[in-house]
Amino acid sequence: MMQNVDNIIFISADQLKSVFIRILKENGFADDRAVRCAEIFTLNSIEGVNSHGVNRFPRFIRNVREGIVDPSAAPSLINNAGSLEQWNGNLGPGIINAIFATERAMEIATSGGIGMVAMANTNHWMRGGTYGWLAAKKGYVFIAWTNTCPNMPAWGGLDPRLGNNPFVMAVPFKDEAIVLDFAMSQFSYGKMESYQNQGKKLPYPGGYGKSGELTSDPGEILETWRVLPAGCWKGAGLALMLDILATVLSGGQATHKIESCISEFGVSQIYIAIDISKLQNFPAIQSAIDSIITDLHDSVPDPGTAPVRYPGENISKIREKSLAGGIPVEKKFWDEVLSL
Amino acid sequence: MMQNVDNIIFISADQLKSVFIRILKENGFADDRAVRCAEIFTLNSIEGVNSHGVNRFPRFIRNVREGIVDPSAAPSLINNAGSLEQWNGNLGPGIINAIFATERAMEIATSGGIGMVAMANTNHWMRGGTYGWLAAKKGYVFIAWTNTCPNMPAWGGLDPRLGNNPFVMAVPFKDEAIVLDFAMSQFSYGKMESYQNQGKKLPYPGGYGKSGELTSDPGEILETWRVLPAGCWKGAGLALMLDILATVLSGGQATHKIESCISEFGVSQIYIAIDISKLQNFPAIQSAIDSIITDLHDSVPDPGTAPVRYPGENISKIREKSLAGGIPVEKKFWDEVLSL
Repeated sequence: MMQNVDNIIFISADQLKSVFIRILKENGFADDRAVRCAEIFTLNSIEGVNSHGVNRFPRFIRNVREGIVDPSAAPSLINNAGSLEQWNGNLGPGIINAIFATERAMEIATSGGIGMVAMANTNHWMRGGTYGWLAAKKGYVFIAWTNTCPNMPAWGGLDPRLGNNPFVMAVPFKDEAIVLDFAMSQFSYGKMESYQNQGKKLPYPGGYGKSGELTSDPGEILETWRVLPAGCWKGAGLALMLDILATVLSGGQATHKIESCISEFGVSQIYIAIDISKLQNFPAIQSAIDSIITDLHDSVPDPGTAPVRYPGENISKIREKSLAGGIPVEKKFWDEVLSL
Repeated sequence: MMQNVDNIIFISADQLKSVFIRILKENGFADDRAVRCAEIFTLNSIEGVNSHGVNRFPRFIRNVREGIVDPSAAPSLINNAGSLEQWNGNLGPGIINAIFATERAMEIATSGGIGMVAMANTNHWMRGGTYGWLAAKKGYVFIAWTNTCPNMPAWGGLDPRLGNNPFVMAVPFKDEAIVLDFAMSQFSYGKMESYQNQGKKLPYPGGYGKSGELTSDPGEILETWRVLPAGCWKGAGLALMLDILATVLSGGQATHKIESCISEFGVSQIYIAIDISKLQNFPAIQSAIDSIITDLHDSVPDPGTAPVRYPGENISKIREKSLAGGIPVEKKFWDEVLSL
């Protein structure tokens, strides 16, 4: 957090949540649904992801007012194919649908070992990692992804044809979890906006500027939309496959049908849960993971870079800090929330 | 293929296969198992992946002679958890085990919609895409990955702690398939060796040289083993998760336990198949994929690069060419095969 400290205020999780609940209720959310959404927006900010917490909340409320998100819609079952179910999200709030799909995948896994929910016609889930933490802390391995509007060029193309389609993998680890949550662009749009808000350059080139050259200037990339796929053709290829699979398995919209990135709605998502308590090696799993992480941490460090970490390693510390001292929020976003 | 044409000979698929069968039989393979292995080594070369076809065959035979690969071992069931099964590969030939696991995942999916096979204690599957094509051409969506020996540094580390853990996603498309098959390093070792054999630089930096700087010289990277993870921290994070999941779900060895990359054995693999004929939208799937691919091909092309393609798009053409005019093989590898 390198911003001018004058612009940062610290807000308690309780205050954030109660303001979110009030606004959600004023915008058509039933009590329990307002609480569920508010909890996730708050949690995302508690865990250091304001781009999908407090900063994103105003856009979410605008989407509700525009009729893009239906505050009272609930998912309905389209098709039961055993350990794989297809659901229609009915354009409900992405967070509520995502919690539902995660829990349903876990239920299926509890009986069949593995459970998959493919959901069509749902909305932005905000931060995919949220559902990874949810499932992993309950003892499940979790894999999920979503498609998005077209916001990334194909490899060899100039205009946005692919979504950056965030992908999540999570596994229980001690009382916490190891959670990978990444978009297929080298930097997510949320991350680039965050660097731009702080007046900082990206640490590595993240896309092409107006001159057609690779650049680390987040503002230029946010103008051209020519984000660099992570790993070049590899991230572009994975983005395409994630879109195809989400579309095929859910029967929902593909990225190219989600025409507007300004008012993105009706995305397709996949949720896979695995009940590891059913595995023959269940008693040995935590020590196996611990050995992998110990070996990772034993890496010979590259003195020029940050220490080697596993995905999500810092989250519990950020969470503790936010809960102890309040959540650092840029004042302009908080003012925007209060004006809703 | 930019090699000196003097070094390239063209060998028919039939000849390649019959030589492989003879050598496999001489090295302890029963008739049907020799045929199955020979077919896959041949197919990989037919489809343009000599690094896991003819060029790799001598090392495979050496591994059999060293006792690392047991030509007569078959997988055994460890645990049935419903739509998820755990199998022991018993150090059998990776190709035979991989075909078995792919077909078993498809069988489970045929009854339960989705099927997962987690296999411990197996061996190198050669080219993961092979099994993607196999499953997709039979009408299944397919996801699979393997761990490997430690051959890639963690992000922020200097020494190899991660595997580059190839990952496969496949989907049926017309009479062919769309198949993504990629290692977590920006370039696979097979690809770097292939550039080195041709005396060529990599098209993008692929790792760090002896001076610690990013380089496109495949020879330097093959010496330092400091390959660049695809997408930097993103490919490194995904590699770690793929290892953790393969290890946890199979109960097999993690990358850090697979001590030697010279005689890598006993890897852990995941196979997921989904029977798309069970989906409510099954009749519309092919036209949905066709729309995605049409939109992809409509990209505004970047004039400086290769045309936009989907993963595996060129394979059917390479296959036809190999079958019509023979498989281009570097003479030194063919001589090595004949000397086995």
